Parts: sequence; structure tokens; C-alpha cells
Amino acid sequence: MLVTLLTDFGTADYYAGAMRGAVLAANPEARVLDITHEIPAQDVEAAAFTLLAAYPTFPPGTIHVAVVDPGVGSSRRPLLFVTKNYFFVGPDNGLFTHACEREGAHEVFHLTNRKFFRAELSATFHGRDLFAPVAGALTLGIRPEEMGERINDEVKLESLAPVVSDGGEVAGRVIHVDRFGNCVTNITRREFSEEGFARGARLLVGGREIKTLRRFYAEEAGGGAGGEGEPFAIWGSAGFLEISVNKGSAARLLNVTRGREVLITPAGDGG
Amino acid sequence: MLVTLLTDFGTADYYAGAMRGAVLAANPEARVLDITHEIPAQDVEAAAFTLLAAYPTFPPGTIHVAVVDPGVGSSRRPLLFVTKNYFFVGPDNGLFTHACEREGAHEVFHLTNRKFFRAELSATFHGRDLFAPVAGALTLGIRPEEMGERINDEVKLESLAPVVSDGGEVAGRVIHVDRFGNCVTNITRREFSEEGFARGARLLVGGREIKTLRRFYAEEAGGGAGGEGEPFAIWGSAGFLEISVNKGSAARLLNVTRGREVLITPAGDGG
Amino acid sequence: MLVTLLTDFGTADYYAGAMRGAVLAANPEARVLDITHEIPAQDVEAAAFTLLAAYPTFPPGTIHVAVVDPGVGSSRRPLLFVTKNYFFVGPDNGLFTHACEREGAHEVFHLTNRKFFRAELSATFHGRDLFAPVAGALTLGIRPEEMGERINDEVKLESLAPVVSDGGEVAGRVIHVDRFGNCVTNITRREFSEEGFARGARLLVGGREIKTLRRFYAEEAGGGAGGEGEPFAIWGSAGFLEISVNKGSAARLLNVTRGREVLITPAGDGG
Repeated sequence: MLVTLLTDFGTADYYAGAMRGAVLAANPEARVLDITHEIPAQDVEAAAFTLLAAYPTFPPGTIHVAVVDPGVGSSRRPLLFVTKNYFFVGPDNGLFTHACEREGAHEVFHLTNRKFFRAELSATFHGRDLFAPVAGALTLGIRPEEMGERINDEVKLESLAPVVSDGGEVAGRVIHVDRFGNCVTNITRREFSEEGFARGARLLVGGREIKTLRRFYAEEAGGGAGGEGEPFAIWGSAGFLEISVNKGSAARLLNVTRGREVLITPAGDGG
Repeated sequence: MLVTLLTDFGTADYYAGAMRGAVLAANPEARVLDITHEIPAQDVEAAAFTLLAAYPTFPPGTIHVAVVDPGVGSSRRPLLFVTKNYFFVGPDNGLFTHACEREGAHEVFHLTNRKFFRAELSATFHGRDLFAPVAGALTLGIRPEEMGERINDEVKLESLAPVVSDGGEVAGRVIHVDRFGNCVTNITRREFSEEGFARGARLLVGGREIKTLRRFYAEEAGGGAGGEGEPFAIWGSAGFLEISVNKGSAARLLNVTRGREVLITPAGDGG
Repeated sequence: MLVTLLTDFGTADYYAGAMRGAVLAANPEARVLDITHEIPAQDVEAAAFTLLAAYPTFPPGTIHVAVVDPGVGSSRRPLLFVTKNYFFVGPDNGLFTHACEREGAHEVFHLTNRKFFRAELSATFHGRDLFAPVAGALTLGIRPEEMGERINDEVKLESLAPVVSDGGEVAGRVIHVDRFGNCVTNITRREFSEEGFARGARLLVGGREIKTLRRFYAEEAGGGAGGEGEPFAIWGSAGFLEISVNKGSAARLLNVTRGREVLITPAGDGG
């Protein structure tokens, strides 16, 4: 059984290693893989996006443990989400909002049965002492019902869906900036189409108009627009529209950070 | 059989990958996991602490390979430590001192049988050519006695135990600073108690008094002391008292580096 | 079956995790290990060297997936190389030149059978959508012939072999600088011998003469030359002559970057 880890612990200290060990201590046959340990410290939104982009590539049955947990030790609840294909284990702070929204129907359990925790439960490292052991127990086939109580009032992050006005104007935002400076927006193929763009729809990011849509990074810039150093839009691999620049950082060029507005105004059909 | 790796090789070069390969070349069924590869270059003390904090989370039988090895190629001996629950493989420079002290009784072998090394043994990369293959051989059930000679004069680091005077004053030190700036001391529950602190025991780190003990990071600061930006003590997940500051680096705030003194003066019961 | 990953995706984003997931989605029993994800962005030469240094440590049958792919989505071909002992999967940009040269005889397949790709093939992330699924299929025993057509016009990098003149002068170059500042040259034991060096052969790197050859890093500097801070030559663990400096960066000291010339003039036997 596969267990993935996603945290903000970094990889320089013992924390990531200790979580791997804690899964295996519960079940030495479990197989542990990293999504990443380099979420910016305490950045639940970045964790939620990264989980959303990575989790569906894993085979059904995978147990995803995600721990970005500023509230560790406080009264925030430890949770288990059960969807049709996956388990998600981690703190009640919205980290699983986007993944569960994509998964659709799911059950949520408040992990209360200490039998599945480490005997010595610290107040500072639930990754090792609670979430990893629970994941190990799940690989052994323990049923969620044995681990805690069903709840339905879990904390949720703001939805990723952009706002579409009656006139067809789309108000979105930048939801992630990757290490290359690509700006991931929350615009999907439901809100933006190549056809509409060709017919005159306008795309504005941080107040600047993006005039080119490329199919891939190395695509030749055609005509006058979209030359070297010019930002362009591209469908990113997580299913969202991204703003990129060839051999450079679009985030720096456009002076954009997460949360910055993205606007699409529909093609003026009448002229 | 599980093999963990702990090194200062970083993850950008081929070194960590080559060690994984070398374990698997000896036994393709072995399972290799990282503790970390980001120990500061040649920092044996940091490696010894990180190993101490991570190794006991893994299940019994795990083989821990740790290679921070400034003396590679010289006459420093390659060693195998066998404790009740674990194997430790690496250079004779004190890296395993703390782990073996916690494990208690153990045997030490000088790895001399070249049959278990890579055929071509380099003078610069014993991680790949000696320690990883030996770990692979251990996963196959090869007995330590076949691998070398028992010794009992291995190199040891200074003990982690603080000095306790007759008057009950404790002289400790900072033994690790993590990437968040948390300062891990060598003070354990044997030297410091919540009750004593409440009764008036004083805690000084780098000459500055620490007036608050929190149970978890996000705990509300009570009363006058311990507000935002004020350093506080907290029981860290490795079992040692740590000095932290909310949303900041205690190491920077207190201008503390590893080795800095930590003092506890007992509560003055008569005054 | 073992699958290794080597990319320039970094480990902070979801890309590396998504590749691990994509291999396992094709075959949940596959075992995925990293060589590294920290190749400098789009640096095919660095990837080719790192792969060369790491791949042979893995056991026969290992599938090496390497994705440094500036041309993703363009007409550059996805390839599979089959050598006596290994499979290599990745883009047609020369990344596998050095590994295949060392392996000797091999076959190359243009991966054209979309049956083994992800159903939704993006134009920006073939690591997840094409190369990882193909690696997963290979672990299931799918034959290369089912995956595409044999070709023999794959892109190749410049050979690593230095040029040796009739007079015995060797013209080489720096092919890699590691994170410690060690400068790896393309000089092997075929072009440089300890005996020749002792007899008076001269070694020049970036115009500066290197006067000492050490067996290991911590070796005592003998005599007048080779003291602390003096660069020295050493046989690196990848089989190439390296230029190092004790506790410092040879690259910085010598102001050397990849590509810089390395010259060996033979011992003047008559003078």
C-alpha cells in the first residue's frame, strides 16, 4: 500500500525522515513516497494547491498524508477524508478542500482513537506521532470507522472557482507561483477557450494584457507579439491556465504574487 | 529489509543516487529511504544529532547508514554497530555516539572483509563503495562476524548529558539549530520540570532569561510575558527542551549558535 | 522492478511527486527512486553527466527515466534506449549520449504508441504523461517493439573523450562542477597516469598549473606544494580526474566553469 507525504518540514532536518519511519513502524510493508517537503512554512494554501495537482497521478487506494499545521497541539482536529479512490490524512485547516472538491462525494472522520497514535503523543509533531501512524494503520486495512467519529463541519479554504458575471466576464486570481516563476491561475477550460481568445477575448493579469496563447513552452513566437521576453498564456499540467515567459520568471516580469487578480473580458461580438 | 541514508552529500549531485543504487545492487529487494542528505558539509555533530532524533522512529531491524566523512580514504576505520534493534553503518568519527548511548549495549565491528565492498573501492566515495554495499549485504542476512573484527575503541563525541552540580544547577548547551531557528538544547525531563519552573527555577540561554514554557507553538501567550516575538521554551519532538519564538528564528533573536551555554538555576526554596 | 528519476523539476513543486505517481499508476508494484531532481533548469549537459555517474550503480534491469526537456511539446521525439543491462527513457536531445557510449551496443526506439501514454497527453509535462507511464509499462514486461519504431539518428552531445595529439599532449575540458566546487574533467586513466605525472607531465586547468595529485581529500600535503588552499588533482568517484581544494571551492579559486580547457603536456623525457 502506498503512502505519500506532503509537508513544510524541509528535508534538511530529521522531520521528514521521522515521518517515513513512523509510517513504516506501523507497517514495515508500507511504501512511502514524497510529494514534497518544501511547501513554504505554514502555507496551507500552497499545500492545498500542490496536493490538488499531485494526488490524482497516484493509483487508487493511495493514502495521502499532508501536514502543514500551524495549529499543531491546539484544539484543531486531526482528520481523515475518505473519497472514492483515496484517503487523505492531516489537520483540519482546509488543506484538503480542493482535492476533496475535485473528488466529489467523501466522508470525513475526526481521528480520536488514540490506539492508532504513537504511544507518546507530542504536542509539536503530529506528523510523526499521529498522522503517519494512522496512515500506517490504514495500509493494514483498519477501517476509518474504528479510528474516529464522522463529522461534516471541517474547515474549508475559499473555493478555487473564479467568479463569472452575467456578461461573461471572468474574475480569477493567481493561485500558485512555481519555482520557475510560472504563475498558475484558477482559470480552467470552462472559463477560457482558444476560440474565444482568437475571436478577441482579452486576458489581463496584474493589469497587463497577455496577448499570446502558446501550446508549449518552446513554441515559436509568431508575428509581432509573443517574442522573447514577452509573457504568454499556456495550459499548465495541473489543468489551469498559466502565465509564463520564455527563459525567465513571469512572476518577476509582471510583479505578480499569489492572489493577484486575473480578468477575462469576452470577445466583443458586436464590434 | 529497510535501509536509511543520512549524509552531507546534498541532493543536487549524483552522490545520493549512487548510494541508493549501490544498496540495491547488493540486494535489489532492499528498500532504501532517506533520513536526509543535507547535513552541513563535514558536520559530524549535526549528523549525530539528526540520526539520534530520527533512527528510533524506524521499525526494529532497520539498517541506518550515515556518511559524513571528512576522513574518507585515510586510515579512519569503517564501522558497523549492532544494537538490540538496529544496525548502524558508517565511519569511525563519533557519528553514532548518541544513538548508541541511547540504545545501550551494543557491539562494534571494524569492517575489513573486502568481499562485501564494491570491487573497485575508491578513496573518495566510501558511501557508494563500502557503506552502501555492506548495508545491502546485511539485508541479505550476512552476519556481522563475517564482515570484520570486533573492536571497542571507537571514536566518541562528547556526551550529550548536561552537567548537574551538587546544588542542582544544570549546565547544558545548544546542540542543534534547525532550519526554522529553533534552538535544541541538551536539557531533558531529567534536568528540567514544569513544576520546578513554576516554583521559580530560572532558565538562561545565551545569557538571556526565558520566562515562558509553552506546550505547543500556537499556544496563547498568557499574562505579561511570552507575547509575540518573545522567546519561549517548549519540549521538542526529539525529547529535548527547545527555545523557540513564534513566527521567527530564536537563534537569530538570541544570537545563539550550536554550543552556546544553557543554564538552569533551581528554585530558591528558602527565599 | 526499479525505476529511477532524474530531472530539473526541483522538489518544491508537484512535478517530481506527479512523476512518481505516474509510474505507480501504470504499475503499483514498481519501485521508484530518485537520482536527482536538481539538475540546473534545462541543462542537458549537466543531466547527461549526472546520469553517466549514477546509472551504473543500479542493478541490471533498472529503468532510468531522465527528463530535462526544453523542447517538450515540440517535434522533438520521445525515445527509449535499450542496452545490455538497462533501459533509458527520455527526450531526444542528447541526454543519454554518454551513458549509451559507455554501455556500448544499444537499440533506440521512437516512442509512438500512445497506448502507453497517459490518456490526456499535455504539451508541457511529458515527464508525467509519457515518460513515466512508459517506464511503468516496461516494469510490466511490455516489449520495446510494441512501443515504437527503431531509429538510429538520435541527437548526440559532443563526446566526452579528450583530444590526444600525436605528441601526446591531451586537450580536455571541465565537464562538471559539483556543489562543493570540485571541477570534474573529462580526463581518465587512459590519458593521465600517476607515473607520468611523477616523471614531469604537467597539468594545466584554466591556465593554472596543478602540481599535486592526492589519493584522498584529507591526505596530508607533502613538501612545499599542495598546502592548505592549494588546488590539487584527485581521481573522482565517477572515474574522471577532478580538481579540488581542501575546505574550499576549486571552481571559485581557479575561476573555472564548465567547458574550461584542461591541458596535459607529457613529461619531457629528453630534457
